[in-house]
Amino acid sequence: MTVQTSELADFISPVPSDVIDAAGRLRNVAIHTPLLQSDRLDALVGGTVFVKLESLQRTGAFKFRGAYNSMSRLDRSRCPLGVLAYSTGNHGQAIATVGKLLNIPVTVVMPSDAPHVKVEKARDQGAKVVLYDRKTESREAIAARLGASGGYALIPPGDHPHVIAGQGTAAFEALNALPANSTQVILVPCGGGGLAAGTSLAVDAVNSTAEIWAAEPENCDDMRRSLESGAREVNQPNATSLCDALLAPTPAALPFSINQRRLSGVVTADDSTVLNAMRVLFEEFRVVVEPGGAIAIASLLANPSLLRGRQAVVIASGGNVDPELFIRAIS
Amino acid sequence: MTVQTSELADFISPVPSDVIDAAGRLRNVAIHTPLLQSDRLDALVGGTVFVKLESLQRTGAFKFRGAYNSMSRLDRSRCPLGVLAYSTGNHGQAIATVGKLLNIPVTVVMPSDAPHVKVEKARDQGAKVVLYDRKTESREAIAARLGASGGYALIPPGDHPHVIAGQGTAAFEALNALPANSTQVILVPCGGGGLAAGTSLAVDAVNSTAEIWAAEPENCDDMRRSLESGAREVNQPNATSLCDALLAPTPAALPFSINQRRLSGVVTADDSTVLNAMRVLFEEFRVVVEPGGAIAIASLLANPSLLRGRQAVVIASGGNVDPELFIRAIS
Repeated sequence: MTVQTSELADFISPVPSDVIDAAGRLRNVAIHTPLLQSDRLDALVGGTVFVKLESLQRTGAFKFRGAYNSMSRLDRSRCPLGVLAYSTGNHGQAIATVGKLLNIPVTVVMPSDAPHVKVEKARDQGAKVVLYDRKTESREAIAARLGASGGYALIPPGDHPHVIAGQGTAAFEALNALPANSTQVILVPCGGGGLAAGTSLAVDAVNSTAEIWAAEPENCDDMRRSLESGAREVNQPNATSLCDALLAPTPAALPFSINQRRLSGVVTADDSTVLNAMRVLFEEFRVVVEPGGAIAIASLLANPSLLRGRQAVVIASGGNVDPELFIRAIS
Repeated sequence: MTVQTSELADFISPVPSDVIDAAGRLRNVAIHTPLLQSDRLDALVGGTVFVKLESLQRTGAFKFRGAYNSMSRLDRSRCPLGVLAYSTGNHGQAIATVGKLLNIPVTVVMPSDAPHVKVEKARDQGAKVVLYDRKTESREAIAARLGASGGYALIPPGDHPHVIAGQGTAAFEALNALPANSTQVILVPCGGGGLAAGTSLAVDAVNSTAEIWAAEPENCDDMRRSLESGAREVNQPNATSLCDALLAPTPAALPFSINQRRLSGVVTADDSTVLNAMRVLFEEFRVVVEPGGAIAIASLLANPSLLRGRQAVVIASGGNVDPELFIRAIS
């Protein structure tokens, strides 16, 4: 592949201070999203939970953080055709929005079954969208083919140090907003693992002793199996879930090298628990969280033994859901 | 009426510095709600709009601010029976929640047609709820009868200087978060007028030159008619609107004395525009705003000549809506 991943080699691993640096870069650009708590939610999960509401982030997901942190550092002379990205939706939308903000041309490769709202919003931002069939094609191969002529910077959703460091700023903000060392557990949604990896760096950046857990859909538990086996396992090709944002087929390599070292474990939940979590978040906080964004809350509901009275930060990672599915959740 | 309105006389008018004082009292207690902007919304209303999202406030409405600011100052020896409040819902819920927080007994008088979710949440906080028929009874009379034996502190939703000052902290936060004097218009939902009055004080507290506008349901436009006539006009007894939070029959006296002096005017919207505004807020920000909370955005959609390219802060004042009505808005 002749596509460059910005000006960095593929596998320079980010370090905790990169999160502090990213937080500085994102100040007054990203939304400092609120931390919300509800007595009813606490009772349901058996602990004290602060929900970091990244559905309110620009573009409706934490992905804006990594997109801005990486694209704002690009050497434009090395990518005259702009940025190429592949995404189940939220990363693509973030890349498209930052492209418009920074005046960088963007091409996004998205699955044809991504929520309509995500495809349309990327196009609204001026991005060129290339659709592919998730069941028969590989997004990496399509991105490589498009990029074969050179001139693009490829910014993948996980395998990029500045993306990982940017994603870590969500947990960094949350940890800094709470009393030092009051947070005993951090639980984040997990697709490719970029958010979990960035969160691990954030925990180290503030010298927190919190355990870091990842949450996955029950039948797309590649991270859980990968941590067990010590190698990057793959989901069944026909595995599906309402959590469209978390359908990456296998853990991304660079985040996995961090997650393998730092994660305490993985918890999962099924689709019906995810819908229930979406309803609880609607009722308690009057917010719209997409299925993948609700997986961490759902996993707490499904695994009541995890918290045991402890205090947790849980990231509600995104809110881009079609009205039909949201109505199904709250009906 | 032998009910005392906390330790203050009914009509001591609050001043701008009271908002600064309230903001200090609410720091680390109220949620510092985010300001959200969307290019699509800006295009729809013909200006730049920052939405102050008070639906994310504790209890789901800005009313928490005034309730906490007033109740945290109570002399408990003067109200051994606790606090008595009447409310279309959000004020009662806020008083109930603060009562639980500060360990003060609360009795709330609510209309029997208030959204079920609001009644239940007040009861969940341990408040005693007294229901009445909004069409045949007066909430003030019921509150007076209950309070006739003495021992209660009455905290009305509008006619209370500490409530008004507390409500002003929402606009105060928004104005302080934006560059000085960049805000040319502030537009707030208006029922009894407490939020508008507090907002006026906040504008003066930061020496802003912004115009202050109120937004009302089209057929409950008592504030608009009152500003025109110079006296507190009354809505038709059978006037109704989806905006249950804004159905106060007439402007409250103390806020009106401030609003009469400071408001630039009133804009209105009908129910179908309110539903449309709720859908736009769902689509652009993934949030749940109740009809009364969306009236200011709806009024901008209905009155495109108001902004004319100017920059505005608009308060989305609350999010307590039954799922059925929210589904109707986003379907």
